[in-house]
Amino acid sequence: MKILIPVLIALLGTACSTQPLRGTGDMGIIIERAIGRVQIVEHSHNTSLAKVEGLGDLSHASLVFSRDARYAYIFGRDGGLTKVDLLTQKIVKRVIQSGNSIGGAISQNGKLIAVANYTPGGVKIFSADTLELVADIPATYGENQQSKTVGLIDVPEQKFVVTLYDAGEIWLIDMQNISSPAITKFKNIGSLPYDALLTPDGRYYIAGLFGEDGLALLDLWHPENGVQRILNHYGRGREPLPVFKMPHLEGWTTAGNSIFMPAVGQHEVLIADKNTWQQTGSIPVHGQPIFVVGRPDNRHVWVNFAHPHNDTLQVIDVETRQIIKTINPGKAVLHMEFTPRGDQIWVSVRDEDRVDIYDTRTFEKISSLPVDKPSGIFFSNRAHQIGL
Amino acid sequence: MKILIPVLIALLGTACSTQPLRGTGDMGIIIERAIGRVQIVEHSHNTSLAKVEGLGDLSHASLVFSRDARYAYIFGRDGGLTKVDLLTQKIVKRVIQSGNSIGGAISQNGKLIAVANYTPGGVKIFSADTLELVADIPATYGENQQSKTVGLIDVPEQKFVVTLYDAGEIWLIDMQNISSPAITKFKNIGSLPYDALLTPDGRYYIAGLFGEDGLALLDLWHPENGVQRILNHYGRGREPLPVFKMPHLEGWTTAGNSIFMPAVGQHEVLIADKNTWQQTGSIPVHGQPIFVVGRPDNRHVWVNFAHPHNDTLQVIDVETRQIIKTINPGKAVLHMEFTPRGDQIWVSVRDEDRVDIYDTRTFEKISSLPVDKPSGIFFSNRAHQIGL
Repeated sequence: MKILIPVLIALLGTACSTQPLRGTGDMGIIIERAIGRVQIVEHSHNTSLAKVEGLGDLSHASLVFSRDARYAYIFGRDGGLTKVDLLTQKIVKRVIQSGNSIGGAISQNGKLIAVANYTPGGVKIFSADTLELVADIPATYGENQQSKTVGLIDVPEQKFVVTLYDAGEIWLIDMQNISSPAITKFKNIGSLPYDALLTPDGRYYIAGLFGEDGLALLDLWHPENGVQRILNHYGRGREPLPVFKMPHLEGWTTAGNSIFMPAVGQHEVLIADKNTWQQTGSIPVHGQPIFVVGRPDNRHVWVNFAHPHNDTLQVIDVETRQIIKTINPGKAVLHMEFTPRGDQIWVSVRDEDRVDIYDTRTFEKISSLPVDKPSGIFFSNRAHQIGL
Repeated sequence: MKILIPVLIALLGTACSTQPLRGTGDMGIIIERAIGRVQIVEHSHNTSLAKVEGLGDLSHASLVFSRDARYAYIFGRDGGLTKVDLLTQKIVKRVIQSGNSIGGAISQNGKLIAVANYTPGGVKIFSADTLELVADIPATYGENQQSKTVGLIDVPEQKFVVTLYDAGEIWLIDMQNISSPAITKFKNIGSLPYDALLTPDGRYYIAGLFGEDGLALLDLWHPENGVQRILNHYGRGREPLPVFKMPHLEGWTTAGNSIFMPAVGQHEVLIADKNTWQQTGSIPVHGQPIFVVGRPDNRHVWVNFAHPHNDTLQVIDVETRQIIKTINPGKAVLHMEFTPRGDQIWVSVRDEDRVDIYDTRTFEKISSLPVDKPSGIFFSNRAHQIGL
């Protein structure tokens, strides 16, 4: 019997966790940007489950989820790549993989994590399981110069796309053969591409240009056509206002035949036709828009704004193109995330240390969670979406 | 010390499960239609995790997943509603809620399970948590007649839509106030509506008509416009072949501006414009199509066929509208399910007792699982999709 006790204790410690079984489909992570911490939350009952510390500089953090929606891979500004277990509520592994990184992506098959780096530039690709380095792809251009990389996104058929900020290039990286990445380079795509988006179907990769007007479009079904320029007037032209913050390209919404996107430096949401890539309209809004995000059924888009108008949200009806609701959550509304079927939207109110939860049908605030300087909110259904 | 042992054993049995913690994002269920059993599977490593027995008549079974992607609610032909826990791999609860049912849906907020019934007809709505009856909605029409119900689907803002087969009606059921469902009835929508689909954005509900040609369309953004007839030639007209099996409407694919759908009784996939609802083309295929399902990036659609051509799959390239691949998995290919980001497709080969797994880039068969008379395959990312 004395032998049995250590066996039972060992079983308690290993085969079995102190955490109960739970599904991971309704979970999420909120970044507490100032203190290197994240909160693990769930949206069935709108509670915070745990706080996980020790993630370094999260001042511009983003993340992707594992294929099984159990783990989050968090990309920190300090080059840290941290794998957090939503179930044990602990850091599984953390590596400082560069001096400064801006974001990353998970491969279609879930086996690779790719990170875009500012310092020293380039893309590093890791095993999602172990975080061991699988491939190191320097972003070399010109006379052995190294470029910052941005807008790194997974695309179908086990590929990634990334944009080289300094080089003005887009690279398509095929990871079908892990030991030998096949890279297709598109050069002279425009000046200082600073961010990118993938249309929800995974077909079009679009990079924004900081150095000139217009956007660079790569049709992934026809890479042989090269990168084309679209929306030539998109940018800072036309008697610009001071640009307080460049809008996030991930904040575009495709609804029906239209794409709703933030104007740069103007108090407008722009509308373009997704078949012709021509601007078809604009909607005057409260400030310089940052994120223009569609409710999952795309009937409404929600818009937040740059300083000094960042205490406000506006809701646009897609069909009538009218603003149907204006809400003032509080100081510094940084990010919004819808629950998967769209019944709720969670809103980070950074300077008031809260995440507010709204009913998207009634626009009523239904709950609020205390969160230290919240920025990004990420729900685990992103695990299943191309480009997220 | 002797006291400690039972305490430890109790801890092992209660606080801790015999199952390890795991994410539920890569899990799924395969229906074994002949023996009342399901298999719980996962697509990260392509394995079967467990078999769960005792689900009654699964000869035309479907299911939905809970908001947290932990539970499956399985609708059996015998009126059984069974809640299965993917983690403990057990039946949590099973109720025989009618004499004969055909399918169901989960509400937008995840709290309600609605079931469409053949016998005695009508819709019953249960608590997703306890399976207690919340609302009983008889499908009464004419002189106190009871209609079979079909095509029950969740739609945004906490509503369901259902079609009354015998009555020729569509009902919109608003469950915002659980104790008092608000029902809007659309009458005279056509003869014998037998199935329905919801477009992926959650806007259009379309019912197929067994008794006449054409389809019945309800625009959920404008229910005040009533139900309209579209695609007037859709159906069995034009020198029909014998119809071996009515195609599944859930098998339609929206890709760009086009909808790809199975013709009825013809060896054709039809293409319609999703803005005008006019037919714009057709593609000759190997047999009478049943499911026409889009890869998650909608670049390809995969098609299976009715008897006697049900040993074959064809893949259509959306852009060129050409068949780019024909595969012969084996006898009675009943169902296909893509992994969430589209790297794999799982295929039920009923009469060969196998589920085959194909790489969607290379079209190579990469694995195969033994499954007794497999029919439906359902992956847990459906938990997050409107209408699934």
